[in-house]
Amino acid sequence: MAHRSLRHWLYVRLDPGAWHRKGLSPLNRFFVAFIALAVLCAVIESEPDVYDGRETHFFVAELVFGLVFLVEYVLRLWTSAENPRYGGGWRGYLRYALSPAALVDLLAVSALFLMMYGSQTAILRLFRLVRILSIAKLGRFSKAIHAIGDAIRSRRYELLMSLMIAAVLLLVSSTLLYIIEGDNQPQAFGSIPRAMWWSIATLTTVGYGDVVPSTPLGKLLAGMTAITGIGLIAMPTGILAAAFSDAIQRRQREEFDERDDR
Amino acid sequence: MAHRSLRHWLYVRLDPGAWHRKGLSPLNRFFVAFIALAVLCAVIESEPDVYDGRETHFFVAELVFGLVFLVEYVLRLWTSAENPRYGGGWRGYLRYALSPAALVDLLAVSALFLMMYGSQTAILRLFRLVRILSIAKLGRFSKAIHAIGDAIRSRRYELLMSLMIAAVLLLVSSTLLYIIEGDNQPQAFGSIPRAMWWSIATLTTVGYGDVVPSTPLGKLLAGMTAITGIGLIAMPTGILAAAFSDAIQRRQREEFDERDDR
Amino acid sequence: MAHRSLRHWLYVRLDPGAWHRKGLSPLNRFFVAFIALAVLCAVIESEPDVYDGRETHFFVAELVFGLVFLVEYVLRLWTSAENPRYGGGWRGYLRYALSPAALVDLLAVSALFLMMYGSQTAILRLFRLVRILSIAKLGRFSKAIHAIGDAIRSRRYELLMSLMIAAVLLLVSSTLLYIIEGDNQPQAFGSIPRAMWWSIATLTTVGYGDVVPSTPLGKLLAGMTAITGIGLIAMPTGILAAAFSDAIQRRQREEFDERDDR
Amino acid sequence: MAHRSLRHWLYVRLDPGAWHRKGLSPLNRFFVAFIALAVLCAVIESEPDVYDGRETHFFVAELVFGLVFLVEYVLRLWTSAENPRYGGGWRGYLRYALSPAALVDLLAVSALFLMMYGSQTAILRLFRLVRILSIAKLGRFSKAIHAIGDAIRSRRYELLMSLMIAAVLLLVSSTLLYIIEGDNQPQAFGSIPRAMWWSIATLTTVGYGDVVPSTPLGKLLAGMTAITGIGLIAMPTGILAAAFSDAIQRRQREEFDERDDR
Repeated sequence: MAHRSLRHWLYVRLDPGAWHRKGLSPLNRFFVAFIALAVLCAVIESEPDVYDGRETHFFVAELVFGLVFLVEYVLRLWTSAENPRYGGGWRGYLRYALSPAALVDLLAVSALFLMMYGSQTAILRLFRLVRILSIAKLGRFSKAIHAIGDAIRSRRYELLMSLMIAAVLLLVSSTLLYIIEGDNQPQAFGSIPRAMWWSIATLTTVGYGDVVPSTPLGKLLAGMTAITGIGLIAMPTGILAAAFSDAIQRRQREEFDERDDR
Repeated sequence: MAHRSLRHWLYVRLDPGAWHRKGLSPLNRFFVAFIALAVLCAVIESEPDVYDGRETHFFVAELVFGLVFLVEYVLRLWTSAENPRYGGGWRGYLRYALSPAALVDLLAVSALFLMMYGSQTAILRLFRLVRILSIAKLGRFSKAIHAIGDAIRSRRYELLMSLMIAAVLLLVSSTLLYIIEGDNQPQAFGSIPRAMWWSIATLTTVGYGDVVPSTPLGKLLAGMTAITGIGLIAMPTGILAAAFSDAIQRRQREEFDERDDR
Repeated sequence: MAHRSLRHWLYVRLDPGAWHRKGLSPLNRFFVAFIALAVLCAVIESEPDVYDGRETHFFVAELVFGLVFLVEYVLRLWTSAENPRYGGGWRGYLRYALSPAALVDLLAVSALFLMMYGSQTAILRLFRLVRILSIAKLGRFSKAIHAIGDAIRSRRYELLMSLMIAAVLLLVSSTLLYIIEGDNQPQAFGSIPRAMWWSIATLTTVGYGDVVPSTPLGKLLAGMTAITGIGLIAMPTGILAAAFSDAIQRRQREEFDERDDR
Repeated sequence: MAHRSLRHWLYVRLDPGAWHRKGLSPLNRFFVAFIALAVLCAVIESEPDVYDGRETHFFVAELVFGLVFLVEYVLRLWTSAENPRYGGGWRGYLRYALSPAALVDLLAVSALFLMMYGSQTAILRLFRLVRILSIAKLGRFSKAIHAIGDAIRSRRYELLMSLMIAAVLLLVSSTLLYIIEGDNQPQAFGSIPRAMWWSIATLTTVGYGDVVPSTPLGKLLAGMTAITGIGLIAMPTGILAAAFSDAIQRRQREEFDERDDR
């Protein structure tokens, strides 16, 4: 019985949906800070000026991060039996273990095993990628991101269409620049994939400027591509603005209707 | 009779409007994938590192693309007689052949004839442009693009006006920079058309940085041009956002009115 | 009497507001095309590669533009007596002559006098600026630009405020970069006005890249400035989108109310 | 009694909320111009080409600015007793002295004391920062900035979320580029913090172009990052556009309801 009540006590503190007070439980607040720390550590230690000479310190820190994530994973698996959604029993544990949140947790834990394969550059980089991706563990705690997600999802079709229009513009502008500037600057415009690098920088208005057309006709087309790029920014922005505006209006209309019914 | 029913059987599978089940027919799904493959192939083969030494492979692939597009063209022409819009008979075939979709198909087929003119660079590039433009064949299958097209068309006048404001700003800023920086950097600002290259990169916020003013007065004007550029982005975005928002609201108002009528 | 009726006949053809058929009168359509031609000519002749060797041709063209604008000015002044707004008489002529449209016309005519001062570079450039600015003559013919103008004017206060926020951000970011990078890159960040050139390119997301901070702290602040720049784009865009959306909704609400009244 | 009435006379002229006529009192208009002048002076004197040789002139100007700000501070403190919000008495003076507006005024006055520490570069720069920051004194006079502030605050949660999405994208894209381009360009992509400099310039579409990936895979990822950057601009713009639009609609609905009630 004590084991049951401990499990329930932990479950309430671990599952943000089971915590009935406002905000996050102290335990989850600790995990949020801990994940942020682990990600920050992975970012900093990738810098040779910081890492070199402090290999042992960072190894110990990474070991601690990995072990805490391992303990967290085991505890969340164990307490998942308290969640009616997974039901309990071996099937319930399996169902929880295959849920997206649990898989993200498992990925974060897997960094521990990568550490044992030594410190070759390739493995070290993969290890850091895993650490950075463990920021996805934070997804469990955020409900507010759903408002943005819903707005994007409600217009996913129009957004996909504007992505396709962008793809067509990318294709056409890079093909034209390849034809016009190909002989002139073979390194930069000598093939359609090469011209795409310039084209994408122009259409998104990033404009690195490492590659620019040099012929008057190429510059004319580049100018038209840049103007088209503004349209490409305007389209998704307009679609999203309408989606967010729509969400607000719908909420207000519901309130308006309720007031009318009274 | 068998010939008639075969034509009808094909027509239903070829014309997206005649297919009564959800989505696209398996045949059209094949064509969509095939067009994407043809465009991808044209993009890749323009890269010398990939093309050189594989000329024969790509020639065969292009021949297959061209022949399939030719067969598709003939089949669509033949089955167009089943479409009540074109009516059938020699006049119906001609009417279909002059429809935009059929002309795009003809353009894609024309690549076959360009292949026979040999592999000179100029012809090869024209050939690739034709291949890339055959992506327009996909337009036949998309109904969703109309929502975006309608929103843009409903505000075409305001969008045109903001394009004209952009043109005036482009003229004025490039003339001013030509006057101020013309003596200083004759290569970059020595004439109004030359200054336009800088001006368009600044107004669209692309900012390649290959050409920048060097005098304090030139930099002051460049800064003001850059700020104006934000207005130029804000205008079409605002217009499009309002258009999309309007489309959503109109749909909701119609639903609201229907509910009121009950 | 004949003189009166000729004046009225001309007035109807010259004043877009007095022309009762749809669109512009044939005479005004000619003037629109003529202004566009004069501006285009001024743009092209500024290019030495085009101008050198064709001085006489361009001189004759400019003379024709100037004389036609002079005749247009005189005719518009003469027919202004038919416009009830100016009343006629010497006072009416004066009132018309001081209206913005007439002053713009006078500016365009003044190019004629600049031509007589010889072809020194400074005068030639001023002359071309006057020619380019004569594009403002087109303002007389556009009624549609008012929709955009109204939307901007209805939110001029919020837009001004976002400009002031931009000014404060510009001041603060350039002061901070001047403090951090001033010793490091005195040419680029050695004073606040110098740092502003970088700051404005970053805040507007133009990003020429001719000047970038080199210290880690400078880069951190530059990154924060760039993110703030997105907010600076979002503010006026959001304000304008709301203004355009509002204009559409108001029109619809008026229609909705009219329908209710019936 | 005279002292009281003088205090009240001054209070009405100093506190924008106590001034019952339209706009600002003449005294406050003087202060607004004076603050702008002080900031402008600090900007200009940071430029060595202007400052060198005019040290005394600028010293006198700065002394005047400091003394006027000191007098203003004392007067505002003294007249705060007339403001019912602070109540008067020593407690009232203290409460006013700790209000944000008074602290900003104190900061501006503190520049006077920095002047006495000599003209070392470090102190001079700090002094100029304080002068520039005294632009915050203008905040007291603006009520209109609240409309923008309210719109931003009403969506602060969504805006914070889009900032967090931006942070995750920044982390992931810089980690990937570090893995792909790290060996190739160790100076630019040799660690995650270094890669972040490129990543932030790309995601905000600033695109300095001082650092660009050189491998095909790096360029592919950079292109995808740039496209994601458009989404990052679209999100806050859409959120703000909806917020501004919502504010306008709410005001109109209130008017609409009032009309219905009549």
